[in-house]
Amino acid sequence: MESKCFLNCAMLTDFYELTMMQGYFLQDHNPQAVFEMFFRRAPFDGGFSVFAGLETLLKSIADFRFDAEDLDYLSAQKVFRKEFLDYLADFQFRGEIHAMDEGTLVFPNEPLIRVQAPLIEAQLLESLLLNIVNFQTLIATKAARIYLASEEGEILEFGMRRAHGVNGALGATRAAFIGGASGTSNTLAGKLFDIPVKGTMAHSWIMSFESELAAFEKYAEVYPDGCILLIDTYDTLKSGLENAIKIGKNLQEKGHDSFGVRLDSGDLEYLSKRVRERLDQAGLKNAKITASNELDEGIIHQLITEKAPIDVWGVGTHLVTAKSDPALTGVYKLMAKEVDEKFVPTIKVSNNPEKISDPGIKQVYRFYNGAGSPIADLIAQEGENLKVGPPYRFYHPRYPYRFLDVAEYQRIEPLLSPVMKDGKILADFPDLKTIQKRTKNNLQTLDDTYKRLINPHVYKVSLSEKLKDLKFSMIAEYEREIQEKASRKGSDSR
Amino acid sequence: MESKCFLNCAMLTDFYELTMMQGYFLQDHNPQAVFEMFFRRAPFDGGFSVFAGLETLLKSIADFRFDAEDLDYLSAQKVFRKEFLDYLADFQFRGEIHAMDEGTLVFPNEPLIRVQAPLIEAQLLESLLLNIVNFQTLIATKAARIYLASEEGEILEFGMRRAHGVNGALGATRAAFIGGASGTSNTLAGKLFDIPVKGTMAHSWIMSFESELAAFEKYAEVYPDGCILLIDTYDTLKSGLENAIKIGKNLQEKGHDSFGVRLDSGDLEYLSKRVRERLDQAGLKNAKITASNELDEGIIHQLITEKAPIDVWGVGTHLVTAKSDPALTGVYKLMAKEVDEKFVPTIKVSNNPEKISDPGIKQVYRFYNGAGSPIADLIAQEGENLKVGPPYRFYHPRYPYRFLDVAEYQRIEPLLSPVMKDGKILADFPDLKTIQKRTKNNLQTLDDTYKRLINPHVYKVSLSEKLKDLKFSMIAEYEREIQEKASRKGSDSR
Repeated sequence: MESKCFLNCAMLTDFYELTMMQGYFLQDHNPQAVFEMFFRRAPFDGGFSVFAGLETLLKSIADFRFDAEDLDYLSAQKVFRKEFLDYLADFQFRGEIHAMDEGTLVFPNEPLIRVQAPLIEAQLLESLLLNIVNFQTLIATKAARIYLASEEGEILEFGMRRAHGVNGALGATRAAFIGGASGTSNTLAGKLFDIPVKGTMAHSWIMSFESELAAFEKYAEVYPDGCILLIDTYDTLKSGLENAIKIGKNLQEKGHDSFGVRLDSGDLEYLSKRVRERLDQAGLKNAKITASNELDEGIIHQLITEKAPIDVWGVGTHLVTAKSDPALTGVYKLMAKEVDEKFVPTIKVSNNPEKISDPGIKQVYRFYNGAGSPIADLIAQEGENLKVGPPYRFYHPRYPYRFLDVAEYQRIEPLLSPVMKDGKILADFPDLKTIQKRTKNNLQTLDDTYKRLINPHVYKVSLSEKLKDLKFSMIAEYEREIQEKASRKGSDSR
Repeated sequence: MESKCFLNCAMLTDFYELTMMQGYFLQDHNPQAVFEMFFRRAPFDGGFSVFAGLETLLKSIADFRFDAEDLDYLSAQKVFRKEFLDYLADFQFRGEIHAMDEGTLVFPNEPLIRVQAPLIEAQLLESLLLNIVNFQTLIATKAARIYLASEEGEILEFGMRRAHGVNGALGATRAAFIGGASGTSNTLAGKLFDIPVKGTMAHSWIMSFESELAAFEKYAEVYPDGCILLIDTYDTLKSGLENAIKIGKNLQEKGHDSFGVRLDSGDLEYLSKRVRERLDQAGLKNAKITASNELDEGIIHQLITEKAPIDVWGVGTHLVTAKSDPALTGVYKLMAKEVDEKFVPTIKVSNNPEKISDPGIKQVYRFYNGAGSPIADLIAQEGENLKVGPPYRFYHPRYPYRFLDVAEYQRIEPLLSPVMKDGKILADFPDLKTIQKRTKNNLQTLDDTYKRLINPHVYKVSLSEKLKDLKFSMIAEYEREIQEKASRKGSDSR
């Protein structure tokens, strides 16, 4: 039942997926099809993104069912015929899916997920897949940026109250943990995903007692360990800090050594330095300082640069809404369809070359140097089966006359691997801590130039020679067709 | 069951609410308390906001329960004592709530929701209340801006794939409809909230057939009515439009008159004008043009200004993520607590005057002129019971020496009314169409100067004389105490 809280229903789909499905169904047009999900621009203009959301997605797909109530609703729309509704009543996704591992660093224009299924089934996945993966990848990326800005410090995700609804909060918490957050304030997410839950106190705790000191005393009585006091309700330095020090010394005398204070307003550099001095002077050298208040990676980077003595970062709004760039605009495009029992590549042409898709069924290969750092990614046709040995030519995805030869590499890793077959999930999911470890490891091996918050170096994602040839020959063919059509009907189209 | 998809659980709360609750419980500190929710800054730097989320919130609160699994999880955190967990096992919210109607235009610093309950119960509502109301109010506001920019046109919300998870999508769709959207692509939201569902086709429909023309023909066979063809897969003017016209004429001959085309890329002004000319020339004067592609209120305003002949606006990412300002930072603050069986006002003082709260239990009165347009709002102490008649003095909330006298008004409306008592919802909820009508009516009566997209006139929210006196006397008292404390312990605090 609680899965209903964060997973979902087949009905959570754009209506046009259903009308298109009925169209395919009634036209008896249901070839095998391959769709791929990719994004064209990294969020935050960053140098990397962190793939997330796969487990949520696959569990949702495996659970996909239209129940009687759903079918009644669809029937009432007066758009669907009985034979199609009967088909939906038995609907189950039975296709196969390849995907990257959660926590993989990903880059624009490479397929993150590849779906192969009868067209009708593959079409239905679009909306849900994009909803889940766009969002979780966005937030995991934001979290990784914040984690790096803090110099791999302790990040607590406190964003529930500003997240986009219930699932905005649950998905955000899951993804933030994947990206490097240490814990969350979100109790339900803690329970569902086994993420450490943390919290301090609100101003209301303090205001509900007769005085700030009394409020601190009462709190310390109940929570002598992990007692983090919020010191900015009235006046941080003149009132909150001095009252907190009384409590901290008292706890220390009684052997409780996990005391700390939280700053939630004001100039965090100035205040944290004054608070640290005063805590040290009072003999509370182990007392930790937690800071919060509209933090993001830019502010944290600046505080770290100024050596603000902050031990724990409470990050909310900016993390869970990805405030500086709140949408990853990943897309799900048809890449191949079965014609006469063979897959034929398809291409979406556009007047804008950046929007022309790379056709066909593809695999992504990551090349590593001897130190284990990724050098560049090569997108190839499925079946090229790149092996370590020869140098490979990497072609620019839009300028076919530009390439580089990569010879100095140690290892090649194919990034897409099978995760679902015949609609069944293929393997147990790693727990979130394992995924987080993978993210952190991936971030560590990535060259620093790609990790700059602003103006990072661009990680290269190129096409193999075969894929380059396929893409540009298809574009040439379409251009030819369009020109012919236009000249044939010159007068007709003005 | 489906309620689980968009409502939620008592566990969806910041962990510190639970630790504070246990603190209050163990300290036997549970006076009646009054909290109010308000925000300090209008999203998008706009001149108004649209209140939304109340029904979702109240239903969630009425359903609040901790089940055995929740309690096991909490118990395993080794923070909670058995007697408190037993209390939670029987927990039910039994307090009372006042709130504004959904669809009310709201402004910074006025209470939108007021909760009165024993401290422990009122505390628990904080995270969930803020999560739901911040988000839905944000999106309803964005939708209203888009609706106004379109000159009260037809807005279709297409944002599911970019929304923040499942509920990000459901809540966004509900709120977008409240703010003025005509329909949604989100099928589940359509079902849950009785919102019209709409959709056209994706590029994949077209690419899955042997040619664009064949794809259009097949679609028109299945959907001769409401046949909206996406014309930008290969080349909008040279290919898509001409193929669509063939279909449109054919449908027209057969008596189907709801044909249209959709533009999803390129220069929408240029293309819509060319497409309109060509459709008219081909005798398809009734054919509608739908436009989409990263639209927001600014782009729509510009297209309207340039007289782009667009009939329907498909708006996704920017609407459901409120991309230009993706978080409403509403807060929930303790305003009064019971001491010796009487309510005593509380205040959160801050070094930043904008963050000092207005103390005590309050009501908001909206003053209207003879034409039915709102003039200004006055926040007063509960019980002042303002009536039509005398002039009222409106005090500036931060500069007590500034005021204006409002004498020329026709009507006064108290905006907070009781919606929950003893934990029970008091009245049936209006359906969403009624709420949308209310929003549209409120927008119509609001003076245009407040509706400018950029640099709107600031709608005045003032304090009554009694409230002003209370607030500034409490500030003065706190300042005195802080000074005394500082001089008493001069040496101690350096």
